[in-house]
Amino acid sequence: MSQETTKKQKIYRPHPVSGYPEWLPEHRMVELEWIETIRNIFESYGFCNIETPSIEELDVLLAKGATDKEIYTLARLQADEDDKTDARLGLHFDLTVPFARYTAQHFNDLVFPFKRYQIQRSWRGERPQKGRFREFYQCDIDVINIDSLPLHFDAEMPAIMYEVYNALNLPPVEIRLNNRKILVGYLQELGITDLAGTTRNLDKLDKIGADKVLKQLQEEVGLSYDIAEKALALATIKAKNSEFADAIRSLGIINELLEEGIEELSFVMNNLSHLPEDDIKVDLSIVRGLDYYTGTILEAYFKDDPKFGAIGSGGRYDDLAGAFINKKLPGIGISIGLSRLFSKMLDMGLIKNSKKTPAQIMVVLPDEDRRKEAAETASLLRERGYKVELFHSAIKLKRQLSYAERKGIDYVWFPPFKDGQAHEVKDMRTGDQKHSDPVIWEI
Amino acid sequence: MSQETTKKQKIYRPHPVSGYPEWLPEHRMVELEWIETIRNIFESYGFCNIETPSIEELDVLLAKGATDKEIYTLARLQADEDDKTDARLGLHFDLTVPFARYTAQHFNDLVFPFKRYQIQRSWRGERPQKGRFREFYQCDIDVINIDSLPLHFDAEMPAIMYEVYNALNLPPVEIRLNNRKILVGYLQELGITDLAGTTRNLDKLDKIGADKVLKQLQEEVGLSYDIAEKALALATIKAKNSEFADAIRSLGIINELLEEGIEELSFVMNNLSHLPEDDIKVDLSIVRGLDYYTGTILEAYFKDDPKFGAIGSGGRYDDLAGAFINKKLPGIGISIGLSRLFSKMLDMGLIKNSKKTPAQIMVVLPDEDRRKEAAETASLLRERGYKVELFHSAIKLKRQLSYAERKGIDYVWFPPFKDGQAHEVKDMRTGDQKHSDPVIWEI
Repeated sequence: MSQETTKKQKIYRPHPVSGYPEWLPEHRMVELEWIETIRNIFESYGFCNIETPSIEELDVLLAKGATDKEIYTLARLQADEDDKTDARLGLHFDLTVPFARYTAQHFNDLVFPFKRYQIQRSWRGERPQKGRFREFYQCDIDVINIDSLPLHFDAEMPAIMYEVYNALNLPPVEIRLNNRKILVGYLQELGITDLAGTTRNLDKLDKIGADKVLKQLQEEVGLSYDIAEKALALATIKAKNSEFADAIRSLGIINELLEEGIEELSFVMNNLSHLPEDDIKVDLSIVRGLDYYTGTILEAYFKDDPKFGAIGSGGRYDDLAGAFINKKLPGIGISIGLSRLFSKMLDMGLIKNSKKTPAQIMVVLPDEDRRKEAAETASLLRERGYKVELFHSAIKLKRQLSYAERKGIDYVWFPPFKDGQAHEVKDMRTGDQKHSDPVIWEI
Repeated sequence: MSQETTKKQKIYRPHPVSGYPEWLPEHRMVELEWIETIRNIFESYGFCNIETPSIEELDVLLAKGATDKEIYTLARLQADEDDKTDARLGLHFDLTVPFARYTAQHFNDLVFPFKRYQIQRSWRGERPQKGRFREFYQCDIDVINIDSLPLHFDAEMPAIMYEVYNALNLPPVEIRLNNRKILVGYLQELGITDLAGTTRNLDKLDKIGADKVLKQLQEEVGLSYDIAEKALALATIKAKNSEFADAIRSLGIINELLEEGIEELSFVMNNLSHLPEDDIKVDLSIVRGLDYYTGTILEAYFKDDPKFGAIGSGGRYDDLAGAFINKKLPGIGISIGLSRLFSKMLDMGLIKNSKKTPAQIMVVLPDEDRRKEAAETASLLRERGYKVELFHSAIKLKRQLSYAERKGIDYVWFPPFKDGQAHEVKDMRTGDQKHSDPVIWEI
């Protein structure tokens, strides 16, 4: 190292901060493609984009009783003694609460059903651990309406979700559906009052197995063995569309809410019958939180790695914005955990990209005196829609080509080295080089 | 309001939080187009995208002595007593510091010159005031290299900036250029030692006028009248390319650094000669902060509203990442304040969009029994690349059409109401309605 580059100043060597992921350019390029793919699919169904601030009032974040979320609050490093306003602000922990607040606040300016998508970061102050991010992208769509919302949307949501996973070329994914009315109606009919405790334990079925769930339902929730077993019998039903209703009814429980749930889930499954039966399944152990879901609920999993946990989820709610506006606004939404999914694909080595720049063409700088011609060539190719980097200095050709190679640029363009000479273009992948005209050349 | 929709729960009516802007869907749609436009231009010059976390260690944020920035620090609402880690984290206040940290941290994985763009939000805990945001989008490009960086990039930056403003259809913009070597060389030759104080006052020339600057240079910086006047004489030079060097030299000050600055600025201006002379100007009152700029500096203004302040700025620095790595990494970058610019255009009524959805076509639902046919039509049109909303319920046609109209959807598609009938499509803008085939129809 030369003396010139030796610093006397104190150097703070930065390191990755646990839970805050960032990617190299070649990987970010793929993430950006993912986001564009997801955006295009959401828009192709007529969802409009909104963005809400990262920051909400704590009164908003806590309005639905989300005290167990690990919310980051903000403080100013050099806050005035008498300025306490920022202490009432926090970073949003999901996109649902901000969406509810937005809908209430802009109610008169929106056309209902309001179909929106949001692709933004959220923050959770969790303790750092493998695979858990404290800052992460979510991709959400929701449709919300005044007073009632057709069941049609309950089928549209999983169909869109399925289309997204397919478009991202993920390993095989399956979407599991349930309906909270089935769960609640059935458990109520069994005389179970602690629905939250019961469903929370049923939710663990895949993770800890039937025996342990049965034990915990008795020990923790206080159910009798018989009742616990009956509750478990419902949750263990995994079925294709044509079979699930019979499987539930064979349990011998009759309840109005339960029947409503079966009918809704049948409607949804019938409207998804154009998708592969093996990929869209009824799974009555899917529970989601009790807080706001009231009908259809769904989760997506890797078929070969269900233990990784849900890679997307959603459901229907009767009243999301009720904390903010005196209207009944039912809706349904899904959320795809982009960062978690992308990071998993990276870890699996499935994100491959040798390009470190979006540039498709690098224009060589033959000589400092030919800069004008080289710049004009680059400019002309750009006008024709190509992404073009003009090499920055008239160093040896070999080194210019090496730069293009290291950045993964496919074409190197040689403008005329002398007046009257022809342009040439080299395909870096094949080595082919031929005369070409920047006005008509096609990639 | 019906009894059913009357809530008993306490309602928290949300209101806009000062400094945290959000837009209605029709305006967000335009902002998204802006971002795509800017992204495409940045990429067309071969800049790759990166994103850094919103959150950095305070040691990173403060590494360059940015104590006067109003940094938001994070605290967890329910932090454990013994967990102090988050107290060392803050939201980034610009994209430059995170970029420097990123470059140092991933140094071995990057190919230099490293040309990156970043379109992200930043946060500043400023006191709320009109036109000042506490959360805002910035669009930055920077190129950084090891040991030295060709002057060519100093011309590329303002050219890209100019292309961006043009593409956004803004009111007329001018870009003003200067070179810190001219300023520093000239002021040093005058024997001025308080460069920071002097340039800070010269920077106010447009805002407070020459008389006040002259007064403050004497009273605050302690310059003699003669010296203050000479300093002011430089800053008042605004010139086209061909004139500025003569104008400086006519002041009679000779200095090596000053000459270097004149030569660099001439090179840059000559390389920008393809752009309109009235839009790209030398303005020696442009100062920028002293903290890291060392060569070319530039600012963009609305020609008709310079008092609005700079709508973009940038410059060259010798050593941005020196706080984080023991290498000399000179670079040059620009930053465009997207939120501020977009908000200004909104206020001026220049953001016009009657569309509340990206959907181009709404497919009518003729009857609940025809849902399958309607859904297939929508699906077919989507496969052909159109953005299509399927109407959600089989209400009266008039009300379905009214929905399409209120959302600003241009085409309404009528699938066959009975088997054997033809498809029809209606252009909502002209009222034209004709038979059509979803397989071959073109917008």
